[in-house]
Amino acid sequence: MLDIPQLLSRHARSIEDLLAGEVPPGQIPYISDGVWYQFSSGGKRLRPALCLITCEALRGDPSKAMPFALATEILHNFFLIHDDIEDGDTMRRDRETLWKHLGIPNALNISDFLIAKAYQLLAGCPLPPKVVLLLLRIYSDAFERTVEGQALDINLRGCADVTLETYFRIVQLKTAYYLALTWVGGAVVAGVEEDALEPLWELGRCLGPAFQIRDDIIDMTQGKGRGGEVGCDLREGKPSIFFAYVLDRKKGTDAERRRLVEIVSKPREETTAGDVEWAIAFYRRVGAIEHAEEEARSLIARADSVIETIPLGRDGKEVFRAISRFMIDRNT
Amino acid sequence: MLDIPQLLSRHARSIEDLLAGEVPPGQIPYISDGVWYQFSSGGKRLRPALCLITCEALRGDPSKAMPFALATEILHNFFLIHDDIEDGDTMRRDRETLWKHLGIPNALNISDFLIAKAYQLLAGCPLPPKVVLLLLRIYSDAFERTVEGQALDINLRGCADVTLETYFRIVQLKTAYYLALTWVGGAVVAGVEEDALEPLWELGRCLGPAFQIRDDIIDMTQGKGRGGEVGCDLREGKPSIFFAYVLDRKKGTDAERRRLVEIVSKPREETTAGDVEWAIAFYRRVGAIEHAEEEARSLIARADSVIETIPLGRDGKEVFRAISRFMIDRNT
Repeated sequence: MLDIPQLLSRHARSIEDLLAGEVPPGQIPYISDGVWYQFSSGGKRLRPALCLITCEALRGDPSKAMPFALATEILHNFFLIHDDIEDGDTMRRDRETLWKHLGIPNALNISDFLIAKAYQLLAGCPLPPKVVLLLLRIYSDAFERTVEGQALDINLRGCADVTLETYFRIVQLKTAYYLALTWVGGAVVAGVEEDALEPLWELGRCLGPAFQIRDDIIDMTQGKGRGGEVGCDLREGKPSIFFAYVLDRKKGTDAERRRLVEIVSKPREETTAGDVEWAIAFYRRVGAIEHAEEEARSLIARADSVIETIPLGRDGKEVFRAISRFMIDRNT
Repeated sequence: MLDIPQLLSRHARSIEDLLAGEVPPGQIPYISDGVWYQFSSGGKRLRPALCLITCEALRGDPSKAMPFALATEILHNFFLIHDDIEDGDTMRRDRETLWKHLGIPNALNISDFLIAKAYQLLAGCPLPPKVVLLLLRIYSDAFERTVEGQALDINLRGCADVTLETYFRIVQLKTAYYLALTWVGGAVVAGVEEDALEPLWELGRCLGPAFQIRDDIIDMTQGKGRGGEVGCDLREGKPSIFFAYVLDRKKGTDAERRRLVEIVSKPREETTAGDVEWAIAFYRRVGAIEHAEEEARSLIARADSVIETIPLGRDGKEVFRAISRFMIDRNT
């Protein structure tokens, strides 16, 4: 089995150096500093590393995958900047978010710079033009789908008639493509043809939602690291699988469901500790957490069978098995 | 001489139809409606038309330039959405701006959709892959430079030690590339090689600033259409050529310059009609408006001589002469 943590740390240094080469700190007035404030806010460069690891495992040249890998890291940061503005989040990993630090105008303009830079990197990939265009297409398609998911997400928060189907649609659009993009890109650079890519996307459609559901569960049980506080998503009114489950399956009484919708719809600062406690207890009582755990397990099982269909020989199956296992362990 | 207004109206319909084909109204929840709210806010599709006109005049096939042309229109709208958020503008052409209409989260997400869509269009241009990559490169470079100009613009408003050099740097970055992009793209689709493009960019570096200065002058003399109100830029603290001239050349007394900086730095809602009147009279008295008119004239003269160096034969010179003349007339 490939040792993913070891591969991650092997690639980390070169990702960092090349990122600094592409977007040199301190060079562009009112942009570079903000870019590096954002980049240094604690990311592990997981996405570019997954791209390089995949490329290498499929006997491609990871140095040729580097521009694409950096572009996935940039897209990730672009989304983080916008998510923080859209959610009004003021803190990320114990630091002020970019918009809180520099104001919305600068945060927005810095994100514009980042996405222009990402596309410069993509357009300059050291590969045959046809391959470069394929990379550009998959990148832009994943970008677009993620944005479509975000549109549903921000507009359906606290919505009283959300279904499980809608929940899965949102989560799939928001997480699947943008995660799978990393290994699909690595595979393309290694020479995998377009018509063999579908199971790799499908793997994203299993693993992305599985990790999101795990994330929902962690928020209910251990807290998401922001000082171990539980129920952050409840406070922010994010559409969780529990909320969708209760409403879709009509769990509890009408009065209980009304109370839940009310709690989820409240502005964050009005949500009390009592509200959060009640909602978590309610979710437990009606089996929402168990249901979520079951869904995550079934998605991971489906991921395993998707991997068996990947038409890339033993090495291909092996790297995706390793990535999938690593991400599941990391997330539990 | 090519009849630009007639060519504009000839291309207008097909631009509109193809834009609607690429981003079909009503199709994507919480995105399409906002996209069309933005698109229908009165733009004349000047940018895509300039691209098609250039391509055709250089004996290229304008239908092959269409995806690039649409991408320039999308970039234009992307910038308008972000400018309005960054400036806190609530109205554009007598309608609410997108962020005012749908909130910043949706406006931002819709702009993300637009830029992903623009790159999908570019990556799918019906041209040899090498040409497509060149189009992608020039588009992303122009995008990046415009953003660099915007960074200076939003951070140097009301700055007391702005120089004329800084003013020109901002205006060149903000206007030149993003305008020239339209005709450079049209030329590339018509088969012009990369090494012949430099004078076309240089034309943008003359005409973009010339039009911006004209715009500054119009704001002082006739008002910018928002009900004919003069001095809007003064209220918003935008770095105009007059402001830079006064400070750079140390016009007026120290006290007068201090008063001007104070007026320009004030939040818009605190700027009085008396402030604006005083500043305009001051600008007139110290020759700032005359100086600006002279600068605009000299940029336009330089544009004329740049056109003579364009290595594209008679047709090439002809189309750029016509575009330049059209834009000057339109702007006076």
